Amino acid sequence: MKKLEEYVVTIPDFPQPGIMFRDVTGILDSADGLQTAVEALCGMLRDTEFDVVVGAEARGFIFGAAVAYALHKPFVPARKKGKLPRETVSAEYALEYGTAVVEMHKDAIRPGQKAVIIVDLLATGGSAGAIAQLVEMLGGEVSRICFLLELAGLEGRRYLSKYTVESAVVYEGK
Amino acid sequence: MKKLEEYVVTIPDFPQPGIMFRDVTGILDSADGLQTAVEALCGMLRDTEFDVVVGAEARGFIFGAAVAYALHKPFVPARKKGKLPRETVSAEYALEYGTAVVEMHKDAIRPGQKAVIIVDLLATGGSAGAIAQLVEMLGGEVSRICFLLELAGLEGRRYLSKYTVESAVVYEGK
Repeated sequence: MKKLEEYVVTIPDFPQPGIMFRDVTGILDSADGLQTAVEALCGMLRDTEFDVVVGAEARGFIFGAAVAYALHKPFVPARKKGKLPRETVSAEYALEYGTAVVEMHKDAIRPGQKAVIIVDLLATGGSAGAIAQLVEMLGGEVSRICFLLELAGLEGRRYLSKYTVESAVVYEGK
Repeated sequence: MKKLEEYVVTIPDFPQPGIMFRDVTGILDSADGLQTAVEALCGMLRDTEFDVVVGAEARGFIFGAAVAYALHKPFVPARKKGKLPRETVSAEYALEYGTAVVEMHKDAIRPGQKAVIIVDLLATGGSAGAIAQLVEMLGGEVSRICFLLELAGLEGRRYLSKYTVESAVVYEGK
């Protein structure tokens, strides 16, 4: 079986000139790619005790839900503003231009529950940090934040330094 | 184990007065709920030969990816406009007010491939119909469209009458 990084397609200048976009759809295009990604994430959790998997809209839903299913855990979707029908908590984070908001149902995490957060890509760490904040606002504990890909040059790991962070594939650049 | 419908939370008057919102996060909140949903969808595919699972952004990613993982198939994300980094095909469909666009990578389906489309909710059938159209534009064949929940009063099944459609839970109303 190929290594996970061999399934990633790199697209230069998307969505803007100068950005090397790491495209996870190359992983999904292959049955073995998806298995490899889910197994890499499950492998990171082998020795972790936790209660729920949290996944970030939209690509984090793909990997997060498959991991939750594989490990027989509940799946908590962290969604964009206004998408969740029940009472929510929300947190804001910085984008390159402006800000974005992520929301979670108020009853998604119960006090004392341990959450694993799954995000496809670690760039600046802003969205993962906001999701971790939501878990904590609800009285939960962040056991671990697992990324499929990491762009080490953006120093997201430093931004998330209070958490245990793991990535399956690390790219040195931005 | 509880039945799938027992996990669905109904929220009156969301997102607008008069709408009974069927909330799939109630399924996800429970490890058994997620297992039950994925098993219901996999059960629909027991006698179907197919090559890829297509899931619609965003909630279709959750169930579609878990099914693709469980059945060892590739997962094709059908995304909102402008989200996919490579060359795409796109199709428009009607919303209550205005229209929306769904896109798929041009190389996501190869000619002759059989696709199963997984969508969380069958309402009017507009988004599922647009995704089916994308599969066909790429030379693929729609084996089956599988929904978790169906609002039968909106007659989406009639709109999708040229396809084989199956739903795990059917609500008579809208």
